[in-house]
Amino acid sequence: RSLATAARSTLRIGLIPADGIGREVIPAARRTLEALGSDLPKLEFRDLLAGFDLFTRTGTALPRETVEVLKEGCDAALFGAVSSPSRKVAGYSSPIVALRKELDLYANIRPVVSVASESEERPAVDLIVVRENTECLYVKQESLTQTASGKEARATRLITERTMAFELALARPRKQVTIIHKSNVLSVTDGLFRETVRAVPQLLEVAGRFDSVAIAEQIVDSAVYRLFREPEIYDVMVAPNLYGDILSDAAAALVGSLGLVPSVNAGDSFVMGEPVHGSAPDIEGQGIANPLAAIRSAALMLRHLKYQDAADRIDAAVNHVVREGQFLTPDLGGKSKTDDVVEAVLRRL
Amino acid sequence: RSLATAARSTLRIGLIPADGIGREVIPAARRTLEALGSDLPKLEFRDLLAGFDLFTRTGTALPRETVEVLKEGCDAALFGAVSSPSRKVAGYSSPIVALRKELDLYANIRPVVSVASESEERPAVDLIVVRENTECLYVKQESLTQTASGKEARATRLITERTMAFELALARPRKQVTIIHKSNVLSVTDGLFRETVRAVPQLLEVAGRFDSVAIAEQIVDSAVYRLFREPEIYDVMVAPNLYGDILSDAAAALVGSLGLVPSVNAGDSFVMGEPVHGSAPDIEGQGIANPLAAIRSAALMLRHLKYQDAADRIDAAVNHVVREGQFLTPDLGGKSKTDDVVEAVLRRL
Ligand SMILES: CC(C)[C@H](C(=O)O)[C@@H](O)C(=O)O
Ligand SMILES: CC(C)[C@H](C(=O)O)[C@@H](O)C(=O)O
Repeated sequence: RSLATAARSTLRIGLIPADGIGREVIPAARRTLEALGSDLPKLEFRDLLAGFDLFTRTGTALPRETVEVLKEGCDAALFGAVSSPSRKVAGYSSPIVALRKELDLYANIRPVVSVASESEERPAVDLIVVRENTECLYVKQESLTQTASGKEARATRLITERTMAFELALARPRKQVTIIHKSNVLSVTDGLFRETVRAVPQLLEVAGRFDSVAIAEQIVDSAVYRLFREPEIYDVMVAPNLYGDILSDAAAALVGSLGLVPSVNAGDSFVMGEPVHGSAPDIEGQGIANPLAAIRSAALMLRHLKYQDAADRIDAAVNHVVREGQFLTPDLGGKSKTDDVVEAVLRRL
Repeated sequence: RSLATAARSTLRIGLIPADGIGREVIPAARRTLEALGSDLPKLEFRDLLAGFDLFTRTGTALPRETVEVLKEGCDAALFGAVSSPSRKVAGYSSPIVALRKELDLYANIRPVVSVASESEERPAVDLIVVRENTECLYVKQESLTQTASGKEARATRLITERTMAFELALARPRKQVTIIHKSNVLSVTDGLFRETVRAVPQLLEVAGRFDSVAIAEQIVDSAVYRLFREPEIYDVMVAPNLYGDILSDAAAALVGSLGLVPSVNAGDSFVMGEPVHGSAPDIEGQGIANPLAAIRSAALMLRHLKYQDAADRIDAAVNHVVREGQFLTPDLGGKSKTDDVVEAVLRRL
């Protein structure tokens, strides 16, 4: 993957706050990026539209212009959150699901890591959910029909994405990939998923590259059960789209708040950071949304673009603020406003 | 529903231990039923075959005879657990999934209740997951294709099942049904599910019967998240098959062990108890399987057949044993054997 080999003089980032608290946390992430100074090239931001609100106003949830600017004028992006209509709305379709497909962001990488206290050596929860990001039920034909030829095409896709899980595992001390599936019921589709992941190590050009990665597997229902009881058994979990969606929310419950959990939607030539939380209509506009998931998503995006130092600085600052516990939003039991938390992070950068 | 209106002189129960610890916990449930004496009619048990082991020996996972004896010679049944092949096995298909369909057991009712300590007024977790039990991805055509006519047929089914959720809610103090869905992505199928559940109160003959039941809803990923953080917000959760599968395992993690959580597969004319746990190959044959989920499943089966007193006696005995904490299997942190736990329950009946 050639995402960031060339040194850039400018880093062009598309900002798509979309709905609800997305409009509060994306500006927070932007401020954090701007504060990094010389660790990054010159930053250029593009404000872009999408969302359910936009749809209700204009009839379009994802304007063509947003997709085109991202594809042609941006190196990366940050996405906020979308609201879900409470009733079926004719013509509406989720813009985040569409964006993942449009930009071919076939993997969704969601590290779920608790902040270790002073006395702990390692965080109690430290895992990554790698979600297949464009297929599974999210094809939105609401059909999983796997014809013989359809299966072939999908396998090609899945292999690429699974490679990403192995690359991630390789960089971690445990080096373990757990395949999440339900092939006891879906023997064809999840059976294919499982076999494909298992085949990755053999398929790579450089023989033996993944020899040190251990492969385990777990059926999705018991995976969720064990996640709650013994999260330490997991290192990198690789899952079909919908299971990954559920698993990452489940894992988030273990680390205190969804407001802490970042993700990137990643493909071969683009990366889009996105907090795992939703648009949170219940707290929208009150200035109390937790900005840390969006800020961490910006760090994850930078890491993916190979700006490791800048990413490390953000993560260290966020961890400090969480550990210290003085500036926390209500979801973490604190009383701080979004802006107070951002200021605290900026002071620590 | 006319499941148990006529008084029976004999209660004929099919026993299908199937695989792994199913063969240890079903006998435990049988002993408990036999100890109830005059609270039940004369009991007749039929030992029936099914399972992955059977498949490997004979090429058949669910013999025709098992289905026929259940349909023609039994009033109810208890199912143990099935093992999942670790690789795709040609010709094998899960016998429990098949049985649910064969017997038209369209609802899977999974109460997840923690045992309140002496000092607690109410259990910390007290909810019921009602799973649609024969459709969703479990149709195993591995296709959710919804044609216009297909939708109609499915709606009819779903209504019947959802009625069960409302009946259950009606019998509970909170009287709240939460619909679990992912209609922000699956607007057609889960949209239909959601609208169908919402339509139940209007569809019933006796107008106003469910007026006191409140309907809430939750998207499946955030439902799992909130389940872990605030389980008290849920009363009766009604979910499509696969979400229900995952949710009930997730809820089980909250009450100490899957080894405590019972279920019944219920239809209009048959009921089959089944512990929510699996065949647990790791502890099979060691005599340490927790029998309480199977014993509670027997109680749930009896309750469904309107033997409330017998069911109450079992539940009270199980709760006593759990609360006392003297005879617990290793999954609950104890050192007891399966048989010790069964004896403890029998002493308390
Ligand atoms: C909003 C929704 C379509 C989305 C998803 O299901 O992918 C969200 O839950 C997520 O996890 O990013
Ligand atoms: C064994 C498997 C087919 C089954 C299911 O998915 O229904 C099990 O997980 C359950 O919950 O009863």
